[in-house]
Amino acid sequence: MSSVLGTIFRTTTFGESHGKAVGCVVENCPAGLELKEEDIQPDLDRRKPGQSRITTQRKEPDTVSILSGTYQNKTTGAPISMVVYNEDQREKDYGNLEHVFRPSHADFTYHAKYGHRALTGGGRASARTTIGIVAAGAIAKKILSLKTNTVIAAYVSSIHKISLPLSFAIPEIGLLKREVEKNPVRCPDQKIAAEMEDLILQVSKEGDSVGGVIDLIIENPPVGLGSPTFDRLDALLASVMMGIPAVKGVEIGSGFSGSQMKGSEHNDAFYNDSGRIRTRSNFSGGIQGGISNGEPIYMRIAFKPTATIKKEQETVNDKGERVILRSAGRHDPCVLPRAVPIVEAAAALILTDQFLLNKFSKFENL
Amino acid sequence: MSSVLGTIFRTTTFGESHGKAVGCVVENCPAGLELKEEDIQPDLDRRKPGQSRITTQRKEPDTVSILSGTYQNKTTGAPISMVVYNEDQREKDYGNLEHVFRPSHADFTYHAKYGHRALTGGGRASARTTIGIVAAGAIAKKILSLKTNTVIAAYVSSIHKISLPLSFAIPEIGLLKREVEKNPVRCPDQKIAAEMEDLILQVSKEGDSVGGVIDLIIENPPVGLGSPTFDRLDALLASVMMGIPAVKGVEIGSGFSGSQMKGSEHNDAFYNDSGRIRTRSNFSGGIQGGISNGEPIYMRIAFKPTATIKKEQETVNDKGERVILRSAGRHDPCVLPRAVPIVEAAAALILTDQFLLNKFSKFENL
Amino acid sequence: MSSVLGTIFRTTTFGESHGKAVGCVVENCPAGLELKEEDIQPDLDRRKPGQSRITTQRKEPDTVSILSGTYQNKTTGAPISMVVYNEDQREKDYGNLEHVFRPSHADFTYHAKYGHRALTGGGRASARTTIGIVAAGAIAKKILSLKTNTVIAAYVSSIHKISLPLSFAIPEIGLLKREVEKNPVRCPDQKIAAEMEDLILQVSKEGDSVGGVIDLIIENPPVGLGSPTFDRLDALLASVMMGIPAVKGVEIGSGFSGSQMKGSEHNDAFYNDSGRIRTRSNFSGGIQGGISNGEPIYMRIAFKPTATIKKEQETVNDKGERVILRSAGRHDPCVLPRAVPIVEAAAALILTDQFLLNKFSKFENL
Amino acid sequence: MSSVLGTIFRTTTFGESHGKAVGCVVENCPAGLELKEEDIQPDLDRRKPGQSRITTQRKEPDTVSILSGTYQNKTTGAPISMVVYNEDQREKDYGNLEHVFRPSHADFTYHAKYGHRALTGGGRASARTTIGIVAAGAIAKKILSLKTNTVIAAYVSSIHKISLPLSFAIPEIGLLKREVEKNPVRCPDQKIAAEMEDLILQVSKEGDSVGGVIDLIIENPPVGLGSPTFDRLDALLASVMMGIPAVKGVEIGSGFSGSQMKGSEHNDAFYNDSGRIRTRSNFSGGIQGGISNGEPIYMRIAFKPTATIKKEQETVNDKGERVILRSAGRHDPCVLPRAVPIVEAAAALILTDQFLLNKFSKFENL
Repeated sequence: MSSVLGTIFRTTTFGESHGKAVGCVVENCPAGLELKEEDIQPDLDRRKPGQSRITTQRKEPDTVSILSGTYQNKTTGAPISMVVYNEDQREKDYGNLEHVFRPSHADFTYHAKYGHRALTGGGRASARTTIGIVAAGAIAKKILSLKTNTVIAAYVSSIHKISLPLSFAIPEIGLLKREVEKNPVRCPDQKIAAEMEDLILQVSKEGDSVGGVIDLIIENPPVGLGSPTFDRLDALLASVMMGIPAVKGVEIGSGFSGSQMKGSEHNDAFYNDSGRIRTRSNFSGGIQGGISNGEPIYMRIAFKPTATIKKEQETVNDKGERVILRSAGRHDPCVLPRAVPIVEAAAALILTDQFLLNKFSKFENL
Repeated sequence: MSSVLGTIFRTTTFGESHGKAVGCVVENCPAGLELKEEDIQPDLDRRKPGQSRITTQRKEPDTVSILSGTYQNKTTGAPISMVVYNEDQREKDYGNLEHVFRPSHADFTYHAKYGHRALTGGGRASARTTIGIVAAGAIAKKILSLKTNTVIAAYVSSIHKISLPLSFAIPEIGLLKREVEKNPVRCPDQKIAAEMEDLILQVSKEGDSVGGVIDLIIENPPVGLGSPTFDRLDALLASVMMGIPAVKGVEIGSGFSGSQMKGSEHNDAFYNDSGRIRTRSNFSGGIQGGISNGEPIYMRIAFKPTATIKKEQETVNDKGERVILRSAGRHDPCVLPRAVPIVEAAAALILTDQFLLNKFSKFENL
Repeated sequence: MSSVLGTIFRTTTFGESHGKAVGCVVENCPAGLELKEEDIQPDLDRRKPGQSRITTQRKEPDTVSILSGTYQNKTTGAPISMVVYNEDQREKDYGNLEHVFRPSHADFTYHAKYGHRALTGGGRASARTTIGIVAAGAIAKKILSLKTNTVIAAYVSSIHKISLPLSFAIPEIGLLKREVEKNPVRCPDQKIAAEMEDLILQVSKEGDSVGGVIDLIIENPPVGLGSPTFDRLDALLASVMMGIPAVKGVEIGSGFSGSQMKGSEHNDAFYNDSGRIRTRSNFSGGIQGGISNGEPIYMRIAFKPTATIKKEQETVNDKGERVILRSAGRHDPCVLPRAVPIVEAAAALILTDQFLLNKFSKFENL
Repeated sequence: MSSVLGTIFRTTTFGESHGKAVGCVVENCPAGLELKEEDIQPDLDRRKPGQSRITTQRKEPDTVSILSGTYQNKTTGAPISMVVYNEDQREKDYGNLEHVFRPSHADFTYHAKYGHRALTGGGRASARTTIGIVAAGAIAKKILSLKTNTVIAAYVSSIHKISLPLSFAIPEIGLLKREVEKNPVRCPDQKIAAEMEDLILQVSKEGDSVGGVIDLIIENPPVGLGSPTFDRLDALLASVMMGIPAVKGVEIGSGFSGSQMKGSEHNDAFYNDSGRIRTRSNFSGGIQGGISNGEPIYMRIAFKPTATIKKEQETVNDKGERVILRSAGRHDPCVLPRAVPIVEAAAALILTDQFLLNKFSKFENL
């Protein structure tokens, strides 16, 4: 139902792949933050199509325009509306698909729910709609960077069956972020990244697609974000990640492997690290009782392979007739490289909202 | 921040392990539904402590009382308030823990966020607070059972390293639900359930604890539930499941294993099954583009081992001093058997809300 | 639809006149506030029935019980649930009304909307449901009193055609509040209060009822509460006041009389009062652009006469048959004296929520 | 805090007088409604500046563009984003005001709350921000017109001390709407309208401004809209009306005059009108217990005189220094004629949301 994320720092997204524009409205951004398009564009560039040979060749500059909420490059407290106009639409690519339910796309469910499909590239179901998340997330990131020590880094940890080794040592987070951006796959190990890139190109040639896993690390989150019940920090993060198109699984901390451990192994012992309470292990993934404890938050997010493939597939059309489908639309053989900034933005939106909400958790601080 | 779940069929929970009562308020339940305490109590009985030798021995009848929202055993459209009074509190069990941060509990994060711990059994962090979810979920289940063909079944599929075999064939769902209730573990395979029970007892004797995985199957969900963006059905289900205490991972459909498949394997081919559009496989887990397609929704939910164990543990107190902890409070050596009704209730709350919201997805149906 | 008020400091009310209890849940009250039932009871006592000879003689002690959200008499940050059990229900008083639509009651609209009436005393439509507002409002008042200089005072300014004179000079607000409580009408002028009381008694004898106006003054509100658009402070106050049963009109500042003034008369000139920016007049009623400017907020709230009267009335029953109605239920011949604490509580809830929200209006304050 | 209105049919507005654009996002408009810019533009034209000699001469075509949420001129169920670009900005008109707090404007409160003023024409405080309400309201009106018999009509009933006579007989609503549009004041009595127009011109020449009252009539509203507590239909309408810039008072039904009536006079007797339950009088204004009873809803909305006047005024600047202000910016000497479509749109938004919500008030209708 809702296209709104957040309680205070609140993002409403709009737009479809086929329409005039995609964008978002960010409410309740505190006033006085310096903000211009240059703060937003870099993350959009990391997400935009056509940035490398392993992404879709659709040409979209994805240039953002701030329509409201700033004055003389400062936020005013009013809703910040941002739009990106769609430029390279090719409706004719989809003409022959108008009545076909593409397997594992949203064609059938949209048709069933809304009585139409607003086709051509997925419409509202297109990953293009995540532009609003990335744009809003860039503001959230800026707030976190100015008011906390939090650093958010996502990267591709596996593509199909090629994974970072279990022994992979996460480098210092600044270095990690630089390594991630050195290759089009956004995997921090350059050698494995090259293997992944080869695989994606190979799969693309075969007219097929692959999935994979993105890891997310949030270093130095403020202590105390989240709350006990439905807005637990882990629940909020799981929700926003599962809401990214193609995501099928989410783990926080020990995740599924934690289900095979005993309490005596899994419990994270507290110790006093020169006055700061820390934990010796971090199977909790930085969140206990739904609230951040200051340790790094880490998550793993599983993406299914892209539903659009060039291989022939059996399906039905909206009359229920059997159809053999061979897709023509441009698409990514693997969504993960472009999903890395989306994952980071989604995390930043949740953290920033919770950071604001945490301002009044204690009466004495009012 | 929020103790509220849902947009229309909305549940607010309240209560702590140490207080007078726990409960919930359910808003916007349509008027005219027959409802009395007898509709609510059975699921609370499945969740209550002391129901078997593998659960905590705290004695709580967990008898629910409907305070408002019904008249002559029918809902009136007004908020339905339900309470369960706490009876067997033993604050003294926790007396010696007042200043200790128990590992992997919420003691430290609550202390950091709220400046206190509202201790004794976890307070608001206690799984006892899920009583409100189970009570509200019982109403949701009743609505679904009367207005749809939806059946929701959860069961324990693994405890520590004992799992249902990959070859486990899910029986017809009514039979499944009966088999699940035949043993205290709530695993549908009686032989494996017995092994699991033995393990739990063994671990309990060792003063340790274990985690595991609960599987959730929703058969015959209405087509069209969920929406494109932040309220995707998968995002909502992931959120509410990750919000259950001790959950660390959530998968829908193919989950993490789907990340290792190719599109040509993973895509669920549509076919015409005597007029109903169905899919030959169901790696989507019944949800495509965030919206239910009518196929069974299935999820896997990973629980960490119980944080409370009797084994000695290193930790610190609220002065930052090193402490050796040996817990005394009554607790479950494994939370999964009692979490089965919580998982079902949480799913029912999401589905019912989305079922109502779906009433106006099409203009022609207004 | 919603029984929830507020964005952060959020109150959900529940309960009906005929049910077991009425009450509320208050979410996101900051942790560490000292709170016990004694903080809540005085305002409930000002609202309770039977407190004088001009109120209904229903006997309800209206004793509040805090079920959750506090520990050792301090708030914990968890939802605060409060209940008042109904004691003196007399369903038989209403037996003969079961099928009758009482004029200007909610009988017909509830029947039309919900298909039933949950009768006996108005059910959810009863002013008894404002107990939740008064209880939650008592917490809000305490927060305001400890963290701001804000003082909220409401009083009866007219009953039927008896009004405070236009020349009535509002005394110092502490004195005002004391004068208000010196008579059962809650009018600060003792002589006029006596006239009002006589009128109410006279009207009651005639089997009739009267309405009137309550004035609300909020002294020393924090500057900056409210926001530009739908959550303007004036809009929020108007909404919560119009939501009190029997209210038909709301004015802020100059109100309707302001519509007959010219800009040059109505504009409130700013001046520098020893460093504090103030206005010479206050036709704005302390709110400009939807945001408080620090001047006293003042409102006038019009209440219609009580719908329940003993005089014979023509109406229809739920079969559409003409019926002559003569009511028997106990009722107030004038609701205003008991509505004074409701108006204050409603204002306190809005102000406290906005006070918390205002914590992050400026980026520099984060 | 919130720039969002509605629970289901939800409008988020954005934009300022000084920025690039103003607009809105409408969520959860049911799919399949025919919608194009031509449906929106007429009401924007009724609101736009420069439409007559009694409105501001700022030149804005206020041409709306639908950016998302439609496909082939039908709504898709996705968020509908609409924008109007600002064209005739004259920042220099405001240059000399940059540091001055204009009396009864939002300059001081915005400065206090947000630390800046986003000046030039009021920024977010400008009535220009109601464009989003009018655009969204046009969709709401279309839904009501296609699915109900509801007709919404607003008109100017008084300007300063010139009022429609008490004996004014409201004509048939279609005729009323046509008469209203025959003169620039939007008063349905042509003779009185001419007097009002003369007064406005006279006042404008004097460099002064006037206020007035707008009456709102909603004929044939669906029975059953609204709900018992905080979302009472009267509370929602009062809130959205009080949120329109310059509004200081709101009455529903008998309003303040009802406070001087006795119950026996005020109660609206029910009768059976050929099978439809109606009331003989309508002091309730079509709303009882917060829910519509099918009778016409009528409201009176008081507007203060425009704060911007050309006459000299005393005030202070942001250093607290005394300043004599003489405004230069273009402005309306009376806001009411252009506020008529805003009032209608605001009412339509509330009614449409409640119309959708009412779909599941009864269990039997699910």
